[in-house]
Amino acid sequence: MSHDEREPTPRFEPWKRRAGRPIDQRRHELFEQAAPVFRRHGYRGATIKQLAHACHLSPAGLYHYFGSKQEFATYPLNRPRLDWESTHVDRNVDPLVQLRELIDLSIRELPTYVLALQLASEVDLRPDHVLRARAFGEGESVFGRILMSVDPAMKHGTAVEMARHLLALLAGSAFTGLDPAANAAVRSRMLEVLRRSLVPAVIDADRFDRTMAADPA
Amino acid sequence: MSHDEREPTPRFEPWKRRAGRPIDQRRHELFEQAAPVFRRHGYRGATIKQLAHACHLSPAGLYHYFGSKQEFATYPLNRPRLDWESTHVDRNVDPLVQLRELIDLSIRELPTYVLALQLASEVDLRPDHVLRARAFGEGESVFGRILMSVDPAMKHGTAVEMARHLLALLAGSAFTGLDPAANAAVRSRMLEVLRRSLVPAVIDADRFDRTMAADPA
Repeated sequence: MSHDEREPTPRFEPWKRRAGRPIDQRRHELFEQAAPVFRRHGYRGATIKQLAHACHLSPAGLYHYFGSKQEFATYPLNRPRLDWESTHVDRNVDPLVQLRELIDLSIRELPTYVLALQLASEVDLRPDHVLRARAFGEGESVFGRILMSVDPAMKHGTAVEMARHLLALLAGSAFTGLDPAANAAVRSRMLEVLRRSLVPAVIDADRFDRTMAADPA
Repeated sequence: MSHDEREPTPRFEPWKRRAGRPIDQRRHELFEQAAPVFRRHGYRGATIKQLAHACHLSPAGLYHYFGSKQEFATYPLNRPRLDWESTHVDRNVDPLVQLRELIDLSIRELPTYVLALQLASEVDLRPDHVLRARAFGEGESVFGRILMSVDPAMKHGTAVEMARHLLALLAGSAFTGLDPAANAAVRSRMLEVLRRSLVPAVIDADRFDRTMAADPA
């Protein structure tokens, strides 16, 4: 496969080896569907009836997936997660393309995790920093693993630090409220950090810029 | 003044021109003193009696400084703030030293602003992103202004973006919970971003590293 052409990667699946549990994928989708209800009413205010309605399910149908409202509200923090070993790097796809996909995936999914953290702060007794480390720990593993595929000479500690730097930018750019277009701003900051580390020693400038260009959405 | 020796800058005062209001400095100190009470009990749980006690004041004494508990709890977000014009850059101090002091000041003060944001989310009707932009907007101005003193050729837009990048790292590194030593981690990330932008075009590597070295605390 040539690395010289932009590849769309329709099936970017770093979680491929997550021991085939389609029910977990379904639970994640249900959380996304119910997110507007949780956002509007908060943990305590959201009723099972409203949540089920948003998921096009009956309350009994929702209980098939989650044992309780608390389990539902904190699902993104507690679902099976990837670690360094279980992250699937696809050998048939340019690692740089996988890195781009991961950046875009992390930007899309950030609001889900921020919401789950807010809900958890109402009902989960674990300290905030423990919950946050759980929420972002998976990102650290997946970013770190893919960074080491992009640059096989990168040391583990370097990859971890770069992953943490990228995730801090991701979380912080949304947090400060300073960017009118936060998603575009964080994307360009993450790319700037990567570019300065990888170009030209690991990747030539032209290939980096071409591969990392945003999808014309 | 030589720029070649490490200067301690005992009086780093970017807020010098904030129109001499010692009462505002006193209010800021009172918020810091009451912070542990607000942290433990939250906005609603903290009583005026407890807050005044933490400030070594009577409740009446506390009301001399703040008209209400809400005014007290959200003071860091509402106090007079610096903007681009009012930031004082000291002509007698190496701008790089002022930048280092600002980095350390921002790391020290972050918990104060995060607390004020949490308290405000209970009582201030403005949306979270508006409050956060207020909290971090002053940092954007002060960082931007001092960055342009470090590199007089830097464009305004570049300085704003670099300030936002630094503040995103600051807020995000604390948020993700991934760093066991978050303060040291964010400091080294901020310096890395600055170093890659300023060295060697604006500042030689040796001077940068010597000036930005952490205080032996």
